[in-house]
Amino acid sequence: MTEWTLHPDRALPADPATRPVAREIYETTRDLPIVSMHGHVDVTTFADDAPFPDPAQLFVVPDHYLTRMLVSQGTPLPALGVGPEGTPGLETDPRAIWRRFCAGWKHFRGTPTRYWLEHELVEIFGVTERPSAESADAIYDQIAARLAEPDFRPRALLDRFRIETLATTDPAWSDLEQHRRLAAELGSLAENVGGNGPAARAAHTAGTAAGSGSAAPGTATLPAPRVVPTFRPDPLLHLDQPAWRDDVGRLAAASGIEIGDYTTYLAALRERRRAFVAAGGSATDHGHLSADTTPLPDDVAAGLFARALAGDDVTAGEAAAFSAHMLFQMAAMSCEDGLVMQLHPGVLRNHDTERHAIFGPDKGYDIPVVTEYTHALRPVLETFGHVENFRLIAFTVDEDTYSRELAPLAGVYPALRLGAPWWFLDEPDAMRRFREATTGTAGFSNLSGFVDDTRAFCSIPARHDLARRIDAGYLARLVAEHRLDLDEAVDTAADLAYHLPKKAYPAPTP
Amino acid sequence: MTEWTLHPDRALPADPATRPVAREIYETTRDLPIVSMHGHVDVTTFADDAPFPDPAQLFVVPDHYLTRMLVSQGTPLPALGVGPEGTPGLETDPRAIWRRFCAGWKHFRGTPTRYWLEHELVEIFGVTERPSAESADAIYDQIAARLAEPDFRPRALLDRFRIETLATTDPAWSDLEQHRRLAAELGSLAENVGGNGPAARAAHTAGTAAGSGSAAPGTATLPAPRVVPTFRPDPLLHLDQPAWRDDVGRLAAASGIEIGDYTTYLAALRERRRAFVAAGGSATDHGHLSADTTPLPDDVAAGLFARALAGDDVTAGEAAAFSAHMLFQMAAMSCEDGLVMQLHPGVLRNHDTERHAIFGPDKGYDIPVVTEYTHALRPVLETFGHVENFRLIAFTVDEDTYSRELAPLAGVYPALRLGAPWWFLDEPDAMRRFREATTGTAGFSNLSGFVDDTRAFCSIPARHDLARRIDAGYLARLVAEHRLDLDEAVDTAADLAYHLPKKAYPAPTP
Amino acid sequence: MTEWTLHPDRALPADPATRPVAREIYETTRDLPIVSMHGHVDVTTFADDAPFPDPAQLFVVPDHYLTRMLVSQGTPLPALGVGPEGTPGLETDPRAIWRRFCAGWKHFRGTPTRYWLEHELVEIFGVTERPSAESADAIYDQIAARLAEPDFRPRALLDRFRIETLATTDPAWSDLEQHRRLAAELGSLAENVGGNGPAARAAHTAGTAAGSGSAAPGTATLPAPRVVPTFRPDPLLHLDQPAWRDDVGRLAAASGIEIGDYTTYLAALRERRRAFVAAGGSATDHGHLSADTTPLPDDVAAGLFARALAGDDVTAGEAAAFSAHMLFQMAAMSCEDGLVMQLHPGVLRNHDTERHAIFGPDKGYDIPVVTEYTHALRPVLETFGHVENFRLIAFTVDEDTYSRELAPLAGVYPALRLGAPWWFLDEPDAMRRFREATTGTAGFSNLSGFVDDTRAFCSIPARHDLARRIDAGYLARLVAEHRLDLDEAVDTAADLAYHLPKKAYPAPTP
Repeated sequence: MTEWTLHPDRALPADPATRPVAREIYETTRDLPIVSMHGHVDVTTFADDAPFPDPAQLFVVPDHYLTRMLVSQGTPLPALGVGPEGTPGLETDPRAIWRRFCAGWKHFRGTPTRYWLEHELVEIFGVTERPSAESADAIYDQIAARLAEPDFRPRALLDRFRIETLATTDPAWSDLEQHRRLAAELGSLAENVGGNGPAARAAHTAGTAAGSGSAAPGTATLPAPRVVPTFRPDPLLHLDQPAWRDDVGRLAAASGIEIGDYTTYLAALRERRRAFVAAGGSATDHGHLSADTTPLPDDVAAGLFARALAGDDVTAGEAAAFSAHMLFQMAAMSCEDGLVMQLHPGVLRNHDTERHAIFGPDKGYDIPVVTEYTHALRPVLETFGHVENFRLIAFTVDEDTYSRELAPLAGVYPALRLGAPWWFLDEPDAMRRFREATTGTAGFSNLSGFVDDTRAFCSIPARHDLARRIDAGYLARLVAEHRLDLDEAVDTAADLAYHLPKKAYPAPTP
Repeated sequence: MTEWTLHPDRALPADPATRPVAREIYETTRDLPIVSMHGHVDVTTFADDAPFPDPAQLFVVPDHYLTRMLVSQGTPLPALGVGPEGTPGLETDPRAIWRRFCAGWKHFRGTPTRYWLEHELVEIFGVTERPSAESADAIYDQIAARLAEPDFRPRALLDRFRIETLATTDPAWSDLEQHRRLAAELGSLAENVGGNGPAARAAHTAGTAAGSGSAAPGTATLPAPRVVPTFRPDPLLHLDQPAWRDDVGRLAAASGIEIGDYTTYLAALRERRRAFVAAGGSATDHGHLSADTTPLPDDVAAGLFARALAGDDVTAGEAAAFSAHMLFQMAAMSCEDGLVMQLHPGVLRNHDTERHAIFGPDKGYDIPVVTEYTHALRPVLETFGHVENFRLIAFTVDEDTYSRELAPLAGVYPALRLGAPWWFLDEPDAMRRFREATTGTAGFSNLSGFVDDTRAFCSIPARHDLARRIDAGYLARLVAEHRLDLDEAVDTAADLAYHLPKKAYPAPTP
Repeated sequence: MTEWTLHPDRALPADPATRPVAREIYETTRDLPIVSMHGHVDVTTFADDAPFPDPAQLFVVPDHYLTRMLVSQGTPLPALGVGPEGTPGLETDPRAIWRRFCAGWKHFRGTPTRYWLEHELVEIFGVTERPSAESADAIYDQIAARLAEPDFRPRALLDRFRIETLATTDPAWSDLEQHRRLAAELGSLAENVGGNGPAARAAHTAGTAAGSGSAAPGTATLPAPRVVPTFRPDPLLHLDQPAWRDDVGRLAAASGIEIGDYTTYLAALRERRRAFVAAGGSATDHGHLSADTTPLPDDVAAGLFARALAGDDVTAGEAAAFSAHMLFQMAAMSCEDGLVMQLHPGVLRNHDTERHAIFGPDKGYDIPVVTEYTHALRPVLETFGHVENFRLIAFTVDEDTYSRELAPLAGVYPALRLGAPWWFLDEPDAMRRFREATTGTAGFSNLSGFVDDTRAFCSIPARHDLARRIDAGYLARLVAEHRLDLDEAVDTAADLAYHLPKKAYPAPTP
């Protein structure tokens, strides 16, 4: 086997008439800073800035993309170090976990996990051989040695990855203390909120509206990285979840508002949103099963809330109706406070009940379902879809909705932007299908740019780089087919990689 | 910026092994006359043959593809000249509207609007620079000057565009007076009905069945253009629409049949269909939300009709059932009178209630929904699917139905033909996906060829040309992959561009 | 017209950067033996080994892919020799049938039927001209002459086609006598069950897990062909089918178990499954309308069964619930006996009621419908999805489920494998879409390899060859885009063509 390297043209179209154009476009976006406005890296990683413990903990154990594939091929989760203490067969030796992963490398062929990991191992850690049962130990040692160095601490990597902004995802009741401490230590809060505030936004708008050329910073000095929170109230909006009342208690505690009824509940949510704005947050995040946003009459909502708070039974249908109602309320609050509303419905969480009971959520057992947007988003879009201060970003894992519902909606409602292809659709061919299915109707200006949506910190540069390559390839095809001029393609590439996420997620004025 | 021109290879595949084949195929269809059997240009345009007023009225104001994109980017409809007199902010200066459009040119990147407009501006009006805030005035002046010339009157353009037949869409109660007058003035009715009647059809069938070579006219002299009406009874079939009773009154007046019950209602519809046949019409057009064609027992239908006519409440469910029943009746009448039945379901009209109230229908707020055909079309196909005189053309904006339902249905029922990719799916990549998803099961012979479905008259040549390019590219790939021989590809290209629409929409004998 | 030949690069990508890589990969799989684990060739064909009667009976009359296309273009089924004796217009002259087929050759352009038939006619029968009205008789004579030769008997072709294993589909009440006789005559049962039994499986696993190189036999001597039965109990699981009680009688007779209630019904099914295992069977096959696997309480199931057996009315809803319950029972039995469970839901059979009454099932009037898997498979996957001995292979004709449901499910549940694109999706572009939509999430290891699913025996080599070409092209693109190394692509190609079907359908130990 030859040495493992990253080919400079990887993920660009093979067709010899298109590749050179793609290369030319990609060259102009490759070094743009990363604006990562939707992700799941824990703020603690940066607040503590502790070294990553070992290769298995860094790459394998927390990454459900990776563990689910090995599970599907017969390796139980505990053998990969996943499971609460005391789980039978729970592997505690990181090297043994790493060996299992390397021995299963074949199973990742054709998956984005393979693509990202190849990028990460080669580019960040200098690995030069393909993972396998034979190479596992040597690679383990090489990574472990790197992790002990100061340059491989989280904050150092934040710089090295050229991350301009990184959004985390935080419970509505988070005290945001780590965010405040981190911002203070990085000296970034004031400076950067300013840097992405209304004035800066106007500048970007002007820059990108120019039609040619781009306001994107090249390789100039970056401002200090800025890690911002995202407000995620999901558990509070589902009356029938077992922990709901406890979570409402947490909300009350965090907001300092005693929650005795629906009115105080709304007030507490409003208060917490304000706190997120103050901490530099620019968005909320909603992961409902359905995209339904139909509001209930206030007294009905209040009645349901009261029953749930009293511990009375609420049917699944009632709980779903309340969730939909609350999405409408969240939209209304976004009109007030300017937090961008992100909605990514359509995933049935914890498909395997028993494994959920043992291993908890986010272990690879979340499976998409048919999702409907045209009817579901109608209440919010009819009411707020033309409100200047409102921004809704919709994601999907149901590809049929791209051309049928989402692009047509985003192509007319000013408030709606389409989120990047997400989760099961974040690999090269799916990203290409997203472009092909949405551009004709929604164009590029109604998109929100790439989001990496990851909890695997080291994969962030690989994911953004891949997105830039796929977009370069797509735009190059439009150029090669004489459907777009090259200067337009270059300008659009910078929008997709850098300007659109900044425009789509403007920081509200605290 | 270099001069704006149309590249001769635009929209052909970039791949160097495929493009030369595509070019060769396209050369054989490029100059075929246009047969436009489904569209929405107003017959008045040709009956009056008045000059188009100005660039904004020609290109911007009436084109909801275009205005919806600018709306999505924050320009309100009135600023684009859209809205009834007295609408706040209604722009009345065509030059100001044109400037707004040109300033937003960037937002059309990657959309078919950009592609068509580039074709129209360069090819028809000789524009040589890309629209922008800077170039807006010069382009405006250039187009305005052209529009004042006799060669740019509608009938002159009909000739220049090489349009052999153009179908308009007309309410069931239209007196068809403009059509009669136009036909008389063009001297085309008798001649062309003959020219596309049973005898001519037999000739075409023989020609296209020959397997090689093509019966398509090359660049020989065209017959006089023929503008034919299409029977669209939609509002009459939905009992719960506010204007329904008024519309029934219009139907009665137009048909000369007093409508007192369900029986006379059917008789009036039948009478009007006869009038459309006499005026050269060859098809009906049905834009229901659902494709359901389930008939009701006659007495139930008659009872619903009676209640609605009496002004009694009809539930949404009852109205939907009556609509489905009436589609079945329309199919039955098509078996009698030979009018081709066109069905394009699956679009929720007027998604934004408030804007509909202000601006009316067809303003860009129509959004597709999931559509079902297998069960929905079963009643009509089981009953009439093998009737020789019956032809149903089904359109969709739900791409998942291509391979799952529509191609399998069209691949067995003789009466069913698939309509071209329509509305949100009329751009290059979507047209390509249609071919890729339907050909394997339905082949080419079960299609009805390209329809432009447009109300933007000047876009007709651009749209047909684009379709011919995309088909040339698709067929070229089959040739390059040795799945089709070149002579077969050339013959098929002529079918798709010219023969299939003529075969699919035969003119009934009056 | 030039001579008709098969181009060596057919169905490989045209792009000059990808084709050479595709060719290189295809060369390594082209000569691998055929493992055909899901099909519908009648065992009688091989048990009797009688010569095929004539070209029409071999190619046209039994192939509903082919007859449905001609029907859609206006040729009635009886004119193609399809229909029970006495059907008006039933053609009995095979040459006349053949002529109609050849005259309609144009209609197959772009369909897989054309692709397969070209392969079959040229490669197997040495035909050198394209079918047409003119060439029909000469081709007929050429094929008829071949069919009279001993080399064109079914068993001889089984050898010539290099078929290592061929699975038939057999009713649950089959006495399997022909299978036993055939196995004895071919001397293959003992040898081959051993050859694909646990020990052999372990060897294959080791071979394919090696990461490079392949354990696939090259052109070495093949073992005697092995024809194995597949257990298909569909009619027994649908209480509301008219023949259900008769079929239960057949089950009782075949099993030797008197069926008086639900318990004895289950026992009889279990007994028959054992008989299929003993006859070399490795799988069951289930063609339900819905994928629902929700179990009922045992007493409810028993009650429904008792009512149906007594001839009492069972509602459609009750029958559907019982069918779903029985899929769950089939899964439970698979855990016991090791038969692989194949599920291919989502097709509405016999869409045209009248034609079904005249012509019977499988005449081209089966049409897909929307299919749901995430909820539907949950009961079986939650309960048995991690059971080591359980294997479920899911097929679909609803492409939207590839990335949304099936790949995510197969990418985590060890028991689930994805079936190859099937029926309406078995042509080049659809096969490519399957790879593009599933690989990112499910990889290759969670697939079950190609199945031809055909009742057209002579099409088997063409179908497997086409699949190998499409896979070579897809893998070549990954290589050309530097997303996979060439050695990995070659190893994966062998898996898809040969190892995965063997691994996915292990023979249970009798």
